[in-house]
Amino acid sequence: MKVQSQRIVISSTRKFINMGSMTRLWNLLKNFHAADISSVMEHLVTREKLTLFNTLHERDSQKAAEVLSELDEEDAAGIIRELPISQISDIFQIIASDDVASILPLLPEEMQEKILEEMEEEPSGEVQELLHYEEETAGRIMSPDFYALNQSTNVSDAITAMQLEGDVESAFYMYVVDDGFHLVGVISLRQLLFARPNTKLQDIMTRDIINVRTDTDQEQVARSVADYNLVAIPVVDEENILVGVVTVDDVIDVIDKEATEDMYKMVSLDSSDRIQDSPLKSIKKRLPFLLLSLLTASVAPLVVKQFTGTIEKLVILVVFMPLVASLGGIAGNQTIAIIVREIAIGQADWMSARKALFKELMVGLGNGAVIGLILGGITSVLFQRPFFGLIIGMAIIINLFVAALVGTLIPLILKLLRLDPALGSVNLLTMCTDSIGFLSLLGLATLFLSKLS
Amino acid sequence: MKVQSQRIVISSTRKFINMGSMTRLWNLLKNFHAADISSVMEHLVTREKLTLFNTLHERDSQKAAEVLSELDEEDAAGIIRELPISQISDIFQIIASDDVASILPLLPEEMQEKILEEMEEEPSGEVQELLHYEEETAGRIMSPDFYALNQSTNVSDAITAMQLEGDVESAFYMYVVDDGFHLVGVISLRQLLFARPNTKLQDIMTRDIINVRTDTDQEQVARSVADYNLVAIPVVDEENILVGVVTVDDVIDVIDKEATEDMYKMVSLDSSDRIQDSPLKSIKKRLPFLLLSLLTASVAPLVVKQFTGTIEKLVILVVFMPLVASLGGIAGNQTIAIIVREIAIGQADWMSARKALFKELMVGLGNGAVIGLILGGITSVLFQRPFFGLIIGMAIIINLFVAALVGTLIPLILKLLRLDPALGSVNLLTMCTDSIGFLSLLGLATLFLSKLS
Repeated sequence: MKVQSQRIVISSTRKFINMGSMTRLWNLLKNFHAADISSVMEHLVTREKLTLFNTLHERDSQKAAEVLSELDEEDAAGIIRELPISQISDIFQIIASDDVASILPLLPEEMQEKILEEMEEEPSGEVQELLHYEEETAGRIMSPDFYALNQSTNVSDAITAMQLEGDVESAFYMYVVDDGFHLVGVISLRQLLFARPNTKLQDIMTRDIINVRTDTDQEQVARSVADYNLVAIPVVDEENILVGVVTVDDVIDVIDKEATEDMYKMVSLDSSDRIQDSPLKSIKKRLPFLLLSLLTASVAPLVVKQFTGTIEKLVILVVFMPLVASLGGIAGNQTIAIIVREIAIGQADWMSARKALFKELMVGLGNGAVIGLILGGITSVLFQRPFFGLIIGMAIIINLFVAALVGTLIPLILKLLRLDPALGSVNLLTMCTDSIGFLSLLGLATLFLSKLS
Repeated sequence: MKVQSQRIVISSTRKFINMGSMTRLWNLLKNFHAADISSVMEHLVTREKLTLFNTLHERDSQKAAEVLSELDEEDAAGIIRELPISQISDIFQIIASDDVASILPLLPEEMQEKILEEMEEEPSGEVQELLHYEEETAGRIMSPDFYALNQSTNVSDAITAMQLEGDVESAFYMYVVDDGFHLVGVISLRQLLFARPNTKLQDIMTRDIINVRTDTDQEQVARSVADYNLVAIPVVDEENILVGVVTVDDVIDVIDKEATEDMYKMVSLDSSDRIQDSPLKSIKKRLPFLLLSLLTASVAPLVVKQFTGTIEKLVILVVFMPLVASLGGIAGNQTIAIIVREIAIGQADWMSARKALFKELMVGLGNGAVIGLILGGITSVLFQRPFFGLIIGMAIIINLFVAALVGTLIPLILKLLRLDPALGSVNLLTMCTDSIGFLSLLGLATLFLSKLS
């Protein structure tokens, strides 16, 4: 849907909901794709979301379920929470079990149990199985629906078997297994279309399969799909038995989410913080981080406090404090962004860490030298005090060097500690660049005070 | 390839290249997937890259071309630049024309012309056609290779036609056109597999097609593929004539690149800045941004300069300057990250901008009140001067409110100016939060100086 027309649809949706004209609401939306309805829904407040969902559910429960599965898990859980258990279990039987497995853990625990009891045995079992795997692993996001046949099957039997099984959501490959259901090959449906009916699958299958294990991290799954240009990747257990498939649409969700998370974690934001959240909800999410920031932000003032004597004697130094600090911060942020992103897209490893550090230090020194020279030069001329310019220039060089050092080390050390490399890295960096910036400026000024005043 | 084994492969590759044992190099790499070789290559320096590429090219020019097309455009262009024209045109005839179209513009202009002349007519024409479309549009990234047949064709003829055409890279749909080659429907290969041989395509095709136009922005293309869970999206011209297809692997590249770009632009980094670049290359890329930052970073010192009189009388104020400034910066960064990401994933529009602004202002006030109260309280007690605490607290509240205001407005205004909403937004924000932070702290202190000292 175009942005223009979406705007109109959203405002009409709102109007009809608030007027209570459910028939007009249904007529407006019935021909839209589920994805379009869900993106309209994202712009509504909770009460409107519920009304819209109920209207859809009454007229076309299949479509309502599809819309739900297109929503963000948190949004979907927010709606589900308000429905009666029997209705939830109906909906959960329609949508894919990997989607159910992502929504269910967000509901109150007793509700989860009741829903799983109420659901039919097969889908309920599938969901419970997925929930056994750890969060953010291939096992958690995989779909247990896929085409898989024994290697000795011939092509025409394979096609009949697929037809009998019915439509499998976004299936583009047929997986081939041996008698023990171990993954041994893969055939694209395109190859199947072109193959002679009596050929055996083992004679046309590709044996060089790219797969992941149930415990593979979802980011790694996404990288494999992206690197090898796949549209789906098979998931096997520790005995190489085929248990599921992760499709590219789930991979895109992972990539989107991880990119947002990286950015959010860099600036100490909770990754569930949304533009649509109420102010109070966002305050609750951000306040703990800001309180922690109070601690990191208190280090620089402690440094400054040691130098109030020098400042009293030469108050003009205060003017240069923010300049030295913010240039260090800006250069350090650049380094952090590069290192975090390279770790995220899987290019940084320990072998290249030393090289990256050396390179960033060189960049820090180089940029520091240029900026320091310029700023020191300007200061010398403006204030007619060459020694003063020298100190400003040196403080800049030191701080840009330190910015490169800590900008590289913070994400790498966080990764070494098995924490997210982006986690609060900007706060930690600012703490260092502010403190070292002030320390070098005021420290040098104190040392050379006699030549300055 | 696992990180562990990749490390070994990289160091062996290096060793063999530097020893000049090309046979051992080939034996090491010949069974790897092109994507794996290209990710090994990304860890080498330019000279090693070239040697590796030439070794591959001598033994298996097809594989060498595949490796090239898996590389980053810049890396690929770096290698291509060093090869003779005849070899380049051979390689460009093997790899997909959309990949050629992304590498070619990075080469020297006269080289581009020579290559296009040297290439065979068909691929050369395809590439030139793609290059007519603007950068970062569907036309630029689409592939002109796809299956498309007339709606009156029956299923068995369609399958034969596809077989005759040969393998089309990552084709999962058959597109259906009318006599004027206008796009009228789509059939998944899965549907084709199950259909009766004498059915006409128009009887089984899906008429409700999701497509984009050649001038659609690549980010919008990516959003459509992601929202509707597609693996490929057809591209039409202004007359609805089918001209190409964008596949999901290209979409993933776009999403990765845009996520990196957002993050990089926020901190004023060139999006082509890479961890593997030489220090000098990175200095050249970052220095212009840092010089610009010198300007934005010079605003706050000008503010401070107005208040040196107050500072001289009450030097303890200096200790609180970095605290007020950095808390404002941290809160503002949070707001910017949220707004930039929501714009990127297409959730923010003008209608919701006002709502977002109001919400962020409330959050700024709320968080400001809490942090201001805490910090003001602590200061009052520690320094035994309640008026001083009051001023610190008020400065925090004002600065967090301003941070929310400019953090929301900067990306929205940049978008309104049709610039990238992330572009240098952190620099601009720091400029505002530093200046306003100092202004409120020092300004209030000046007003109430008599009560403070």
